[in-house]
Amino acid sequence: MRTSGLLIVLFLSIFDIHLYSQAISSELVKGYKETAQKITDSALVNRNAYSMLKKLCNIGPRLSGSENSITAIHWAENKMKELGFDNVHLQPVIVPHWVRGNVEKAVIVNGRYKDREINICALGGSIGTEIDGITAPVIEVKSLNEIDSVKQKVKGKIVFINESMDETLLSTFAAYGKAAGKRIFGAIKAARYGAVAVIIRSITTRFDNVPHTGVMIYNDTIPKIPGVAAGYMDSDFLSKALKDSPDLKINLKLKCKTLPDIPSFNVIGEIKGSEFPNEIVLVGGHIDSWDKGMGAHDDGAGCVQTIEVLDLIKHLNLKPKRTIRCVLFINEENGSRGSEAYGQYADSSGEKHIAAIESDAGGFTPRGFGVSADSSVILKIQSWLPILKLCGIDYIEKGGGGADISDIKKAKALIGYKPDSQRYFDYHHSDNDVFDAVNPRELELGSAAITVLVYLISEEGL
Amino acid sequence: MRTSGLLIVLFLSIFDIHLYSQAISSELVKGYKETAQKITDSALVNRNAYSMLKKLCNIGPRLSGSENSITAIHWAENKMKELGFDNVHLQPVIVPHWVRGNVEKAVIVNGRYKDREINICALGGSIGTEIDGITAPVIEVKSLNEIDSVKQKVKGKIVFINESMDETLLSTFAAYGKAAGKRIFGAIKAARYGAVAVIIRSITTRFDNVPHTGVMIYNDTIPKIPGVAAGYMDSDFLSKALKDSPDLKINLKLKCKTLPDIPSFNVIGEIKGSEFPNEIVLVGGHIDSWDKGMGAHDDGAGCVQTIEVLDLIKHLNLKPKRTIRCVLFINEENGSRGSEAYGQYADSSGEKHIAAIESDAGGFTPRGFGVSADSSVILKIQSWLPILKLCGIDYIEKGGGGADISDIKKAKALIGYKPDSQRYFDYHHSDNDVFDAVNPRELELGSAAITVLVYLISEEGL
Repeated sequence: MRTSGLLIVLFLSIFDIHLYSQAISSELVKGYKETAQKITDSALVNRNAYSMLKKLCNIGPRLSGSENSITAIHWAENKMKELGFDNVHLQPVIVPHWVRGNVEKAVIVNGRYKDREINICALGGSIGTEIDGITAPVIEVKSLNEIDSVKQKVKGKIVFINESMDETLLSTFAAYGKAAGKRIFGAIKAARYGAVAVIIRSITTRFDNVPHTGVMIYNDTIPKIPGVAAGYMDSDFLSKALKDSPDLKINLKLKCKTLPDIPSFNVIGEIKGSEFPNEIVLVGGHIDSWDKGMGAHDDGAGCVQTIEVLDLIKHLNLKPKRTIRCVLFINEENGSRGSEAYGQYADSSGEKHIAAIESDAGGFTPRGFGVSADSSVILKIQSWLPILKLCGIDYIEKGGGGADISDIKKAKALIGYKPDSQRYFDYHHSDNDVFDAVNPRELELGSAAITVLVYLISEEGL
Repeated sequence: MRTSGLLIVLFLSIFDIHLYSQAISSELVKGYKETAQKITDSALVNRNAYSMLKKLCNIGPRLSGSENSITAIHWAENKMKELGFDNVHLQPVIVPHWVRGNVEKAVIVNGRYKDREINICALGGSIGTEIDGITAPVIEVKSLNEIDSVKQKVKGKIVFINESMDETLLSTFAAYGKAAGKRIFGAIKAARYGAVAVIIRSITTRFDNVPHTGVMIYNDTIPKIPGVAAGYMDSDFLSKALKDSPDLKINLKLKCKTLPDIPSFNVIGEIKGSEFPNEIVLVGGHIDSWDKGMGAHDDGAGCVQTIEVLDLIKHLNLKPKRTIRCVLFINEENGSRGSEAYGQYADSSGEKHIAAIESDAGGFTPRGFGVSADSSVILKIQSWLPILKLCGIDYIEKGGGGADISDIKKAKALIGYKPDSQRYFDYHHSDNDVFDAVNPRELELGSAAITVLVYLISEEGL
């Protein structure tokens, strides 16, 4: 049985190759492979995404509402014009405006660790403290849900949610998904039982002491308390310190605050389709970032890759059949207002969005694409794998998309670009996320992979 | 036709899954998947390869013949004993003994760039210079073969082989293969026409000024001349400088030399097979490195991963049917004497080497394995892909192996572990190749992937 099984596998392997060439004619496959090679060569040699990323990172972090974010928006608009894109414009979006302020400090104020500082940063959206800060004892829990089981002991305390990422998951995004709840909902849950603040262990895969921020939310029916993230090493330290000094108190000072909403923009440019201009293949990332590091992987990489998609197609004079549109969304990190605004536009524009492809998983080496669509659409994209392999794509899997394209509800396919995930959360939402953390070949192969997929969709439809 | 083609693809996709489970029973697949998950969990959580790599790197670089290499060999031997491996021993190997010395300097001595230093390092195996060095004009060529076309102009000059890696190749190893000839054979070809030294552009993918060494060879019938590599940036500088100052001269001083051959060792340990102890599944890397950086990716990673293979199998109490042997080869970088010695042993030992798996492509995120074997063997290994996917393996491809296992001529399969290649030559053979350049999750997933493959071969045979 084993041998016959193997023979059938052999037969199928040969048959498979034959089938791929049946889905589109072998002549077409050959042409697409040549185009894919040209796209990849151009990306790897010219490194335009990498050059753009350096410029974008030099602006500084780009939190929604900040001056930097507006500078970055105009930089992207001008870059699209300079590259000769069609219909370059800004779509107005009103965004939240949270500012970190110049004080964020947590210090142990009593006992044997007196004056020991804990390296923290405020979570995005947190309220600040009075000028003298909040001083309170600390209670440690190992998960968000464990707060319920110690609810009697929480009142008047700082709740320290010391939950690590699940290191055993192959996808670090899956591990992030499991861990992010403590950051987003920790303050609500702790305040319900009378806590005065929350400290979370940073959601990171890296053993260092850099705190990682990210969005937290409040519920209007429950008192608002500050939320901060501590570095990995200082989370370990605090946990140990609490074992021998359970009565230790921390003074927490934060100057962060939320200002009134403020105008901002999505940045949009396109290459008009030569045969079906009303059919849109959208590609994009988000122009905002957190206010730590430079937002290089998150999501400077996605912005410059998706600008480069259009540039590569123009540069190689490919004249796509359908309109290829690049949208750089504002406010992915703390509100998704850019996504909502574009979604409303897409609903009412009369255009037909064929596919939307998001790059928001870092500028790492390509692995695959995740596709949310009917099975027949997924199979069609899978049949292009021999072409996509030329730029490092190993798989097309079911399920995917991204926060910014989730409001484009009528698109036939929502597609998430999936680079390798192993290093992403070393950098994510922290001072580690700088230009130097991006490898040019990895970034450019991502540009190439997305470009090839976009071009195939434009030419073949879905 | 397109629709029917897609339907057949759909049918085959379902059928494929069925087939995989036919090659080995679905019950067995389930068991192997559970084991693979345990192996991966343990690697990712305990990070033993990463801890070992830190220790190994702390010894310093481990060039064959050096004191460090002997320290590293004894460290590995003791580590294998401490981990409880069977039959831990050293296999004697006589190795070359080249030393860099404490002077390597290239300076422009005339014209507008007088006193400008070019950042260089000697190539491994190069002869040194007299104490005052060699002073000569420079002639630039763009490839090894271009030396032939300027042979009339080479006499008395330093030949500067300014050939970049081919950035368009997806596999950086393929690009390295194209570029390495200039380093290995440059001195022979240039000396044939009377050159006094060669400078090559470092073989690297990284835009910095760190020179990358590597082996060069001589031919006894042609005069020996020194060979050095210049950093990427200084190669660009020198090329530009030669355009406006074609008469510039460089003084090159090197104190490197080759000492008499010296005793060294391969390090060997194993887990004795419970059913077929005479059948060997070998796994290994090379314990020597160049004398730049710490040999972290090349090939500290492969050494600690393959030690960890046995440790994971022991730790999880898996009792493999066949003997799993770890061999850390000496002298891969400049002689392959360890490979030869083990190959001779394998030829005459009476043992049956089923497979040999080498990890010598860096500690990066797993992508695949390359297999040199009969088609039926490759298909068998491909049928295990659903299990190997749990630790990040996307493909099993035909063709693969590695320098250190190439002398095990009777093995049914020679297999090369293929992590992602994009960053490898940023570090390779240079001061960039340090412990911090290795990401623990990427390294450990490699350990897990190799362990799962080794275990499957041990249990299922080939």
